[in-house]
Amino acid sequence: MTDPLVAAVGAGVRLIELGQPFFTGMPCSPNHPGFRMTLARRHGDLVRPDGGSAASEIIVTGGHVGTHIDALSHVSQDGLLHGGVDAARAQTGGRFSAHGAENLPGFLCRGLLLDIAALHDTDTLPGGYEITVEDLERAARRAGVHPRTGDVVLLRTGWARLFDNAPAYLGNRSGVPGIGVDAARWLADRHIAATGADTTAYECLAPGAGHSVLPVHRILLVDSGIYILEHLALEALAAEHRTEFVFVLAPLRIVGATGSPVRPLAAVSR
Amino acid sequence: MTDPLVAAVGAGVRLIELGQPFFTGMPCSPNHPGFRMTLARRHGDLVRPDGGSAASEIIVTGGHVGTHIDALSHVSQDGLLHGGVDAARAQTGGRFSAHGAENLPGFLCRGLLLDIAALHDTDTLPGGYEITVEDLERAARRAGVHPRTGDVVLLRTGWARLFDNAPAYLGNRSGVPGIGVDAARWLADRHIAATGADTTAYECLAPGAGHSVLPVHRILLVDSGIYILEHLALEALAAEHRTEFVFVLAPLRIVGATGSPVRPLAAVSR
Amino acid sequence: MTDPLVAAVGAGVRLIELGQPFFTGMPCSPNHPGFRMTLARRHGDLVRPDGGSAASEIIVTGGHVGTHIDALSHVSQDGLLHGGVDAARAQTGGRFSAHGAENLPGFLCRGLLLDIAALHDTDTLPGGYEITVEDLERAARRAGVHPRTGDVVLLRTGWARLFDNAPAYLGNRSGVPGIGVDAARWLADRHIAATGADTTAYECLAPGAGHSVLPVHRILLVDSGIYILEHLALEALAAEHRTEFVFVLAPLRIVGATGSPVRPLAAVSR
Amino acid sequence: MTDPLVAAVGAGVRLIELGQPFFTGMPCSPNHPGFRMTLARRHGDLVRPDGGSAASEIIVTGGHVGTHIDALSHVSQDGLLHGGVDAARAQTGGRFSAHGAENLPGFLCRGLLLDIAALHDTDTLPGGYEITVEDLERAARRAGVHPRTGDVVLLRTGWARLFDNAPAYLGNRSGVPGIGVDAARWLADRHIAATGADTTAYECLAPGAGHSVLPVHRILLVDSGIYILEHLALEALAAEHRTEFVFVLAPLRIVGATGSPVRPLAAVSR
Repeated sequence: MTDPLVAAVGAGVRLIELGQPFFTGMPCSPNHPGFRMTLARRHGDLVRPDGGSAASEIIVTGGHVGTHIDALSHVSQDGLLHGGVDAARAQTGGRFSAHGAENLPGFLCRGLLLDIAALHDTDTLPGGYEITVEDLERAARRAGVHPRTGDVVLLRTGWARLFDNAPAYLGNRSGVPGIGVDAARWLADRHIAATGADTTAYECLAPGAGHSVLPVHRILLVDSGIYILEHLALEALAAEHRTEFVFVLAPLRIVGATGSPVRPLAAVSR
Repeated sequence: MTDPLVAAVGAGVRLIELGQPFFTGMPCSPNHPGFRMTLARRHGDLVRPDGGSAASEIIVTGGHVGTHIDALSHVSQDGLLHGGVDAARAQTGGRFSAHGAENLPGFLCRGLLLDIAALHDTDTLPGGYEITVEDLERAARRAGVHPRTGDVVLLRTGWARLFDNAPAYLGNRSGVPGIGVDAARWLADRHIAATGADTTAYECLAPGAGHSVLPVHRILLVDSGIYILEHLALEALAAEHRTEFVFVLAPLRIVGATGSPVRPLAAVSR
Repeated sequence: MTDPLVAAVGAGVRLIELGQPFFTGMPCSPNHPGFRMTLARRHGDLVRPDGGSAASEIIVTGGHVGTHIDALSHVSQDGLLHGGVDAARAQTGGRFSAHGAENLPGFLCRGLLLDIAALHDTDTLPGGYEITVEDLERAARRAGVHPRTGDVVLLRTGWARLFDNAPAYLGNRSGVPGIGVDAARWLADRHIAATGADTTAYECLAPGAGHSVLPVHRILLVDSGIYILEHLALEALAAEHRTEFVFVLAPLRIVGATGSPVRPLAAVSR
Repeated sequence: MTDPLVAAVGAGVRLIELGQPFFTGMPCSPNHPGFRMTLARRHGDLVRPDGGSAASEIIVTGGHVGTHIDALSHVSQDGLLHGGVDAARAQTGGRFSAHGAENLPGFLCRGLLLDIAALHDTDTLPGGYEITVEDLERAARRAGVHPRTGDVVLLRTGWARLFDNAPAYLGNRSGVPGIGVDAARWLADRHIAATGADTTAYECLAPGAGHSVLPVHRILLVDSGIYILEHLALEALAAEHRTEFVFVLAPLRIVGATGSPVRPLAAVSR
């Protein structure tokens, strides 16, 4: 007898892209190394006796560069990681002995899109706009969904449209829209597994303030053990008004790291 | 009405790990940069006014380091990539203008495990052992499966057990077991989407010969447009005798690259 | 009998700094990877039984990042390097088989400072200013020196003062002062060994034009085999009106590379 | 009137190479990232309107990779750097606020070669051989030199001859010859500025013991503020029996780092 999941997949699946491409010069916070892919060996450098040749590259990047997920080791509060783990001790030796990226789970679960930009009838929310509890509740109602335990909840600001313009996208001067403290608690109270947005920092950045404080990271990562995704590409999903879908994610098992580059996908039946 | 795929996933899913961890010192062909994750910022380096602190890293790696997938730009034959694309022209500028890793699809499809080690009643096939057409046919019969269009076919040699011992796993002296030319053609004739193994090069390496010629890469990547996965971890899947499952893969969209590190997963109903 | 050079050095030497510091965030052309030093091991990560501990780093940089010297492999004209070497052939394999940085000589020779900013009674020459033959002749006369075979000639624009302000220093909008084609020929005619300046590209960049053409690089590197130094720190030397000195340089012997980070020094008797 | 140093240099100088080349695959302790130079842009990737083209690279390395000098931040004893500086505090923020590599001086001073291999009538001292006070005294006597304040003293073991054979050169099994504790104190008592050897760790490594303890690093770096050079190439200097010379060194000013790759040179009158 065929596994029901295998049968459902066999009946036809369509994948919708949720990740940004990785390329030299893409937007990157100055806190992190910029992404760089360099071809080390090119075709013709070494031709095998049978006429075959291979090309390959060296990649320099970070765990928080491009579309990525934060591991629970990423943020501490008063010296403690999630679950009261001592951050200084966990990082001794140069890789985290607790909450490292190798512990990030794979995801094949329900995903929900809350389209806050659409709620406000705009392509892109203004820089510094704070997403409120009311925004979440109204967007969920419009979408006909209720976030519940184990869901992944994606918040659309429309800023993925700015990804090709690094200064605009990073929003140092303008600020960046994102979720506020109360709305983050609303999500945490629903015991979701992860949440993400189509911006550089997920949470609201005031104009000119940069990453001076990141209270939502504390609420989600430290207090609640909820993973955060940043730099999502949500335009294709929003364009087809998909609010409920299967969320697919497979973070790299980087031992002792604080995050992983990823390529999230939404999956729906064909 | 709920999407059938969302419903199937909602009924309960279990993920089985198919990727190796990434860590400094893990096995790596000398053709590629070794993987290295270095914490750049540690907790306490910069404490925000509210007591929050963040840690992050720099990662140096390659597109063919650790568990990874080959893009079609990886191998050329007589100067041509898959579909007759001129390799020299495609690579000009330092990133591939055709067949780059950003074109690698996501996978949520049927996966099959052909356990060649079990077929031969061994934990690990001997170095240099060539997997034959007969091996594939017997393993498929035993598994009760028929590879067909769009499937992902994984071949188990048992060598994932050696991953913690880099010299043994890379097998420079011993050779490495893997698929031969005729067996690769057998797979290609079934129009599968991708195939992989739990070894460094997927194909059979003779003792002491290294990567001197790689004919199977040509048959699959250049002639057939079938992607190759290397360094898989197939022990957990084999231990529970799963031969049919949902294969989950999301290669990073690295523009113009020849491969991507990945974390493949098998998914089954709970 | 003591070597005369050993005796001169033994009589007392003073070194004057001509190199900029290397740090994350320092000015760097977008054509090159940004410099990044990351501590990989910190004191306390691993304490030896006797109470000893070591710290060390990983460095990502380029051959043309920070204060550096161009090797003759850096620039080609119509497909040829200096001396008619075929550039495509020389670079096959991913490192230069001719004119690579491992061939860069060490320097312990006469150095001359031509202070063009002082000549024009300014701290910093304006962006886009082209240094002329007349400038060189007048500055040499003022300095009481005649460039001759084997000398290293340093041109001061005053722009080292802007090094802490990356956008101003790189001068994308303003242009950057530097030597023009005729003045470069004047230097080449004197058979100097190397020349450099306190700017990003040595030669004159017009406002908004970037590195669209670099004719002086061709004249010096390709036609004449004269090495170019960029990002020099010439303020200390200029402040004490030193126009003749011993120039000290030891480029790293990076096999097959196109340049090397360096720390040039001026040496004078105490 | 000409500066006496400029005059001595003008009379003719010959440079003798003391640095090893830097290339992918060169010997490197597993504690440090391996050196890797990758051409990022090749000639022809981007041809300017005038037929000019440039090539450049990305370099991944460490501060203790290849021929290099240790900064005083490299080693701590019981939590303290040289001069009683608190190591934990100095490294907070991810770069050293004291004793970083940007404080490494340039060197143009007297250098002495003590050829211990020649003293023992051998090309290469045996692995694990400990250089004694008597060795130093006899070698100095033979060379007709007395180490004194500010000198740089180079010890030859002959192991530079093994540099092309990484396992032999690193000597994990055989051990590596080098200076012992008493001999290091003898050097420190003479207030030299720096010392180095043609091996991976400068000091004596017992067979199979690796870098388990490094007491000489403590005596020189922590107790005495004397810099250490490793991976020197001393064969050319020894071949011409030069025991006194001008030592030329210009470490890169890498802010907050624990060491710098270098290319040391010996200079003599022609």
